Amino acid sequence: MDDLDIPETFLWSGTASGIKKSGNPDLALAYSSFPAITAGVFTTNSFPAAPVRDARRRLDERSRFRGLVVNSGVANAATGEEGMRRNREMIGSSAGLLGLEDDEVLASSTGVIGDQLPLETIEEGLPDAVDDLAEHPASFADAIMTTDDQRKISSVSLDGLDANLLGVAKGSGMIRPDMATMLGFLFLDHPVEPDFWQSTLERACDVSFNRITVDGDMSTNDTVLGWASDLPNREPIGSDDDEAEALAEAVESVCRDLAEQIVLDGEGASRLIHVTVEGALDRAVARDVADSIAGSSLVKTAVHGGDPNWGRVFSAAGATGHDLDAEAVRIKLNDVTVYDGEPVEHDAETLRASMSDSRQRIHLELGSGEQRAEALGCDLSAEYVRINAEYHT
Amino acid sequence: MDDLDIPETFLWSGTASGIKKSGNPDLALAYSSFPAITAGVFTTNSFPAAPVRDARRRLDERSRFRGLVVNSGVANAATGEEGMRRNREMIGSSAGLLGLEDDEVLASSTGVIGDQLPLETIEEGLPDAVDDLAEHPASFADAIMTTDDQRKISSVSLDGLDANLLGVAKGSGMIRPDMATMLGFLFLDHPVEPDFWQSTLERACDVSFNRITVDGDMSTNDTVLGWASDLPNREPIGSDDDEAEALAEAVESVCRDLAEQIVLDGEGASRLIHVTVEGALDRAVARDVADSIAGSSLVKTAVHGGDPNWGRVFSAAGATGHDLDAEAVRIKLNDVTVYDGEPVEHDAETLRASMSDSRQRIHLELGSGEQRAEALGCDLSAEYVRINAEYHT
Repeated sequence: MDDLDIPETFLWSGTASGIKKSGNPDLALAYSSFPAITAGVFTTNSFPAAPVRDARRRLDERSRFRGLVVNSGVANAATGEEGMRRNREMIGSSAGLLGLEDDEVLASSTGVIGDQLPLETIEEGLPDAVDDLAEHPASFADAIMTTDDQRKISSVSLDGLDANLLGVAKGSGMIRPDMATMLGFLFLDHPVEPDFWQSTLERACDVSFNRITVDGDMSTNDTVLGWASDLPNREPIGSDDDEAEALAEAVESVCRDLAEQIVLDGEGASRLIHVTVEGALDRAVARDVADSIAGSSLVKTAVHGGDPNWGRVFSAAGATGHDLDAEAVRIKLNDVTVYDGEPVEHDAETLRASMSDSRQRIHLELGSGEQRAEALGCDLSAEYVRINAEYHT
Repeated sequence: MDDLDIPETFLWSGTASGIKKSGNPDLALAYSSFPAITAGVFTTNSFPAAPVRDARRRLDERSRFRGLVVNSGVANAATGEEGMRRNREMIGSSAGLLGLEDDEVLASSTGVIGDQLPLETIEEGLPDAVDDLAEHPASFADAIMTTDDQRKISSVSLDGLDANLLGVAKGSGMIRPDMATMLGFLFLDHPVEPDFWQSTLERACDVSFNRITVDGDMSTNDTVLGWASDLPNREPIGSDDDEAEALAEAVESVCRDLAEQIVLDGEGASRLIHVTVEGALDRAVARDVADSIAGSSLVKTAVHGGDPNWGRVFSAAGATGHDLDAEAVRIKLNDVTVYDGEPVEHDAETLRASMSDSRQRIHLELGSGEQRAEALGCDLSAEYVRINAEYHT
C-alpha cells in the first residue's frame, strides 16, 4: 500500500454515513483538481441502475468531469423514476459541497437492489467526506466495498509521461454466474484524447473485467470509469503518439491486476482458476468455452475440493454445444496432460498435490484453429453459500 | 410406490456389480417382451458420451429394440474409440444373456467422466441382473442413480388405451448451470407410430427435462428414451388417432413429474423454485429470462436463506441483456407483488414467512408481449458444495 504510484491531481475520501447498518464506510468521493477527460464502460444488463443510466447519458454529452460520488449499501437499481431523481439529488448535494457544477459530477452505486437511496443519510455524511479529501485512495477504496474482504488498488508509474495511473475496484460475489456489482475507477494525472481514452478503456476491460463478469452477463450497476486530468501544460496522448502503447499497456495491466484481486477476493474463494483455451476456429468459440469452464459450478467445487476431476472440464467445454472434435482435444491441469483425444496416464499424485496451490491452471487445446481466449474464475465454497444466503434484508 | 401403474410388457432389474466403490447398485436392465418402438432425445453437448453416440446412430437406423442396459458410476465419456468399443461390448454381453441380438439392445451410462468402462466387473454383474428381472422397476430405478438421494418413478394409467405409462429417471446435481447426467426412460405397453412417438417425446422433454437442464447446456450423457411395446393385437397410436392427445398429455405429465422429482432431489436442495415469465415479445426471450433467474446462484442462495431478495431476480432477468423495459416489469414472489415498475410496498412479514415453503414461486410479467415460459430450479446450499467437492476420485 505504501509503495503506490499515486497521481497527483486527485483527492479521495470515504466515510461511514450510515447507509450500511454495519457502520462500515459507505460513501466515497473523488475530486480532480483539473477537469478530467472521462471515459466509461457500463453494464450490458437490460435493467441498468439509475446511476448507470445517468452516467451513460451524460458521458455521451460531455467528456470532462471533476467529481465522483459513490455510495455502497444501496444499488439504486429497480427504483424507477424516483431512483433517477435521487441519483441527481446525491450528485447535486455532492457538487454543492465540492464547489462544482452538478454537470461536473458523476455518481455510482452498489449494494442491495430495489431500495431507494437514503438521501438524508447521505446528505448527513457528505460534509465529512468532503472534509476528509486527501491524497491517498485507501479510504475511497474501503468505502466502495460491499462483501469484499480486501480493498482493491493497483497502480503503475508511467516514466515516459512522468505520470501515474491508479485504479480502485470493488467486486466480490460476481464471478459468473453470480452477478454482483463490479465497480472500477482509474485515475491518471495526464491529459488524453477522449476517443483514445475511451477505446483504451474498452479494450482493457475486454481482457480483464469482462473475462470475469462475462459479456452480457452483468449486474445492474457494473461500471468502469477512467479519469485523466487535463493538465494545462501537457500534450494530450492520442492513438498516434509514441506513448500511446505504453499507456494502453498500463491501463490493461492495472485492470488485469484489479480483476485478479476481485477473483481472489471472490466470496469464500480460496483459489484462482485461470482457464486458457487455444486452437479454436474463432475467438467467440474460444471465449465461450473458457467462460463455460470458469463458470461451471462443478469445476469450481472440484477445484475447491482439490480434486483433479478433468471430466467436468471436458463436460463444461462440451456444454457450449459448439461443433468441437473430442478426438482433437487436449486438456492440461496445472501443466499435466490428462486427456489427449482419450484419457492419458499421468502422475496422479503429483497432480493432486498441485491442486492445493492458490492458482490453478486449466488449459484446453481444441485442435481446430488458431484462436485463443482466457477466463478467470475462482473456486466455489460452502462459505460462498453462507455469505449469499445471509446478505441483505 | 405400491400404487404404480406398471406396463405389463416389461421386466426390470438392478444389481450391484462393483463399478461403484460404495457397493451401491450400479447395473440396470430393462427387457421388453415384444419389440418396442423406441424414441430418443439426447444431449446437445459437443462431446456426447460413447453410449449417446451409439444410441443416436442406431435409432437413426432402426426403430425397434428390446433390451436396455444402464450402468452408473462410470459415464463412458471422454473415452475415445476405446469407449465406443467397450460400449458395444457391454451391449453384446447383455444381449447374449438376454437371448437377444446385439442390434436389439441399447445402452446408457452415467457417472465419472474420463474413466473407461470396467468390462470385467460389468460382465460379472450381468448374470445376476438377468436373473433378477422382475415386473417392478424399483431396483432398475435404484441402480441408475448417482448422487441422487431418492429413486424417481412416475406412472399414469391410460384408461382409453387400457395401457400404462411408466417413467424412471435419475438426475441430481445437474440443475443449471451444473451439468450432471440426466437419464430418463419411459415404458408403455401399447404400440405407437414411430414418428408420433418421437415427436411426442421431444415435445414432452421440451416442457419438462429441458426446463431444468436448459437447452444447449447439457452433460455429455443426457438421454431420454421412450419404449412402446409393439403388442401384435393392438393398433399403433398415431397423431391422427383419438387417443393421441391423451397419450401426449400422459407423456408430458410423467416427464414433468420426473423433472420435479429431479429438482427436489437436487444436491443439497431443500426448496423447489418455479419461475414463470409472461408478457415476453417472443418465447426465446421468455425462456432465457426464466432460465437466467432459475439458474442464478444469487437467487438460489437467497431462496436457501429464506430471503425475499427480489432485487436478485430483477438483476438476473436483466443479465440476459434483452431489450426489456424496467418500468413495464412486475415481479411477484409467492403471489406477493414486490415490484411494479418501481418497488411496491408489501407485507414483508407475510412474504418472509412464505419463504420457508418447500415450493417457491417467482413470477415475472415483462409487459411487452404475449409469450410465456417456465423454468424449474432449486435452492443452492452449502451441502451442494460439500457433495460436489467430494464426489469422484
